[in-house]
Amino acid sequence: MSGILIKNVNILTMNEEKTIIPKGVVAISGNIILEVGDSTLEEKYKDFITIDGEDGILMPGMVNCHTHAAMVPFRSLADDCGDRLRKYLFPLEQKLVDRELVAIGAKYALCEMLLGGVTTFCDMYYFEDEVAKVSKKMGVRAVLGETVVNFPAPDSKKPYGGLCYGEEFIKSWMGDDLITPAIAPHAPYSNDEISLKKAHKLSKKYNIPMIMHVAEMDFEYLYYKEQYSLSPVKYLNSLGILDENFIGAHMILLDEGDLDILQSNGVGVSHNMGANSKGAKGVAPVLEMYKRGMKIGLGTDGPMSGNTLDIITQMALVGKVHKLYNKDRTILPAHEIVEMATIGGARALNLGEKIGSIEVGKKADLVLIETTSVNMQPIYDYYSTIVYSANPSNVHTVIVDGKILVRDKQLIGIDFLNVKKELLNLRDKVETIAKEM
Amino acid sequence: MSGILIKNVNILTMNEEKTIIPKGVVAISGNIILEVGDSTLEEKYKDFITIDGEDGILMPGMVNCHTHAAMVPFRSLADDCGDRLRKYLFPLEQKLVDRELVAIGAKYALCEMLLGGVTTFCDMYYFEDEVAKVSKKMGVRAVLGETVVNFPAPDSKKPYGGLCYGEEFIKSWMGDDLITPAIAPHAPYSNDEISLKKAHKLSKKYNIPMIMHVAEMDFEYLYYKEQYSLSPVKYLNSLGILDENFIGAHMILLDEGDLDILQSNGVGVSHNMGANSKGAKGVAPVLEMYKRGMKIGLGTDGPMSGNTLDIITQMALVGKVHKLYNKDRTILPAHEIVEMATIGGARALNLGEKIGSIEVGKKADLVLIETTSVNMQPIYDYYSTIVYSANPSNVHTVIVDGKILVRDKQLIGIDFLNVKKELLNLRDKVETIAKEM
Ligand SMILES: [Zn+2]
Ligand SMILES: [Zn+2]
Repeated sequence: MSGILIKNVNILTMNEEKTIIPKGVVAISGNIILEVGDSTLEEKYKDFITIDGEDGILMPGMVNCHTHAAMVPFRSLADDCGDRLRKYLFPLEQKLVDRELVAIGAKYALCEMLLGGVTTFCDMYYFEDEVAKVSKKMGVRAVLGETVVNFPAPDSKKPYGGLCYGEEFIKSWMGDDLITPAIAPHAPYSNDEISLKKAHKLSKKYNIPMIMHVAEMDFEYLYYKEQYSLSPVKYLNSLGILDENFIGAHMILLDEGDLDILQSNGVGVSHNMGANSKGAKGVAPVLEMYKRGMKIGLGTDGPMSGNTLDIITQMALVGKVHKLYNKDRTILPAHEIVEMATIGGARALNLGEKIGSIEVGKKADLVLIETTSVNMQPIYDYYSTIVYSANPSNVHTVIVDGKILVRDKQLIGIDFLNVKKELLNLRDKVETIAKEM
Repeated sequence: MSGILIKNVNILTMNEEKTIIPKGVVAISGNIILEVGDSTLEEKYKDFITIDGEDGILMPGMVNCHTHAAMVPFRSLADDCGDRLRKYLFPLEQKLVDRELVAIGAKYALCEMLLGGVTTFCDMYYFEDEVAKVSKKMGVRAVLGETVVNFPAPDSKKPYGGLCYGEEFIKSWMGDDLITPAIAPHAPYSNDEISLKKAHKLSKKYNIPMIMHVAEMDFEYLYYKEQYSLSPVKYLNSLGILDENFIGAHMILLDEGDLDILQSNGVGVSHNMGANSKGAKGVAPVLEMYKRGMKIGLGTDGPMSGNTLDIITQMALVGKVHKLYNKDRTILPAHEIVEMATIGGARALNLGEKIGSIEVGKKADLVLIETTSVNMQPIYDYYSTIVYSANPSNVHTVIVDGKILVRDKQLIGIDFLNVKKELLNLRDKVETIAKEM
């Protein structure tokens, strides 16, 4: 038998007991974790290709639960501008977003996610079939939903065209081991009851995730209060569309009882602290969600909202902001944040049986964090070091579905310089148009 | 004439007008910035040693306005523990902190600061003469104050021994071009009126900075309210010790009128968002301070409080948390945060005439941020890219006082592996003692 053996690593298994194995070993066969244990296992797998982890930290691949990967060509544009969405982004999207931009943007974003230790991401945008093709080719696990909105969009001249586009997309990617197709109504306020119910019907029919921005915007919250005397969550619940396939991004502006609804319907949540803080949106009640055992993962949101696409940067922020808001340095300890970044995110995407922890039989999605860089020492607590000290440049090796995609901080089998060249061409186009705006 | 020419860089001068020079050139002679301009200057300095910045961002060296560098051996210990100060840190300090630990800790911390683009730091701890020797040897600019506390400390068996120790230290380092000696009463609550006034006398006598933690702790605020019906700032003001040499760290818990006092006395402030958020301390009113034109810089606090020692990590957090607290994404735009990280910090340390901006005649303290890594593109706004996308690993070249100390992300002339070895020996000692606690 052949496979990969990772040795000399300190393993954060993120299993139910959060077992840590110092100087441990993981054996991979095909795309599956075959065995996890201490160094005595080395002998047994001496025919395997060996990766010496050099006393680094081996953790499950990180899960980015919410992004719009293809928006990377717009990153760093108008960051501190008040109504940059209406002033810049929407007009730019109308003029520029096509299949090519999505493919190039996704390719670049995937390079960044891989180099930062993200092995699974959940994405919603236009032309998700392009994102699917790129992800499949690059070997990254993904949950991808075509956006549904009540205005003409790059993928459809008619409002709600994403429903039709989305169903085709779902049908062609159903059953793929790496790519989970989904449907993604943009938000409650950018859809109507009919489109939301249709999207939910697709989610039921194909048993696939339904992704949506929920309870993010002040105007959204006020609108549903004024129109229906309901919170956004209660409005969605009144339509009967909240269930275990539902993945809500943000979930900031919640009313009393909303958490009960989300919990009892088994809704998954993507907590996007970087974007929510930079956009001054607010702080989602993640502490309460965590205590209820809800399915919570971390997300970056799009690169125009949160700028970075890795999850390590999110972890640092999540801990600090929640401690600050709760005036308690002991809440959300580092291990709970690493949990959200891995198995929590996997559960939020309904992939908890397949990925998110280093356990026998799970898919081999693994990240090796080096501990040789100056910021990584000394270590008394591996979780602390990851959450409070690490940055994405400490990601050394990344394995997705049993394949080594990053080694020694370099992408394997991807011509990054060419990907960057394509992105920079797009950048110049964006700047030309933005200057006229 | 000989010197260093840095070419092909996008220069954030951080001068009064915040002039940006794309594809610019900086000429350095000795430790001084000789000329700053566009690429036509290259011809003039063709005999200089040339650094090709490869379209990177050249910014002034970053200023870490508050840290306890030597505490790095304790980093990642008991991070999420409630009373870790009394339970772990103080006992550990009593048992372990000596000249050797301070020298080793400072050396390691300086490696980290340099690699992260910090060219000047302001430090308070015990045995600051050791920190001074290390800084001088490594070529890093520093403001260093011996701690004064009302209990026996590693540098003195008697309470307030830091006053005497500190004066000796001040006398032996006065007039050094790189090292500014200072005096550092730990905090109002860990000193009495006499020691605070004595420290202030030293500050006046030698015209050197007085560094202190102020208005950081809830118990501190309550104590001065109960005892004197004053805020901590008003209490210090009543002693007549707030002046232009005063550098206050934290300044979170302020009353009405406190900002007027701080402003009119010309007090410098170190804003330490990483430590203040991780420690659940609160958010200093930095927006108001900035609007008043006060001298505000950014600090990391000690590596046991804020873990990382670079200022790039702080910048990302500062913007996000203040936007969140003020519910306004447009406040503290990226260029204001870069200002705090450079010239603002320089001014807070009363070094604004000497460093903090890229201007002719100033000391050559410069940082080159590469723009080739995946997280750094595309760029529409250099400030945005630094604040919202960069991490310390993007620091490529660092020059302090005209000397190249980091090149191609590597320390020059410093045996980092040996420094790390010394730190890891200390780590094992710390762990042994911590386990018995
Ligand atoms: Zn989003
Ligand atoms: Zn401090």
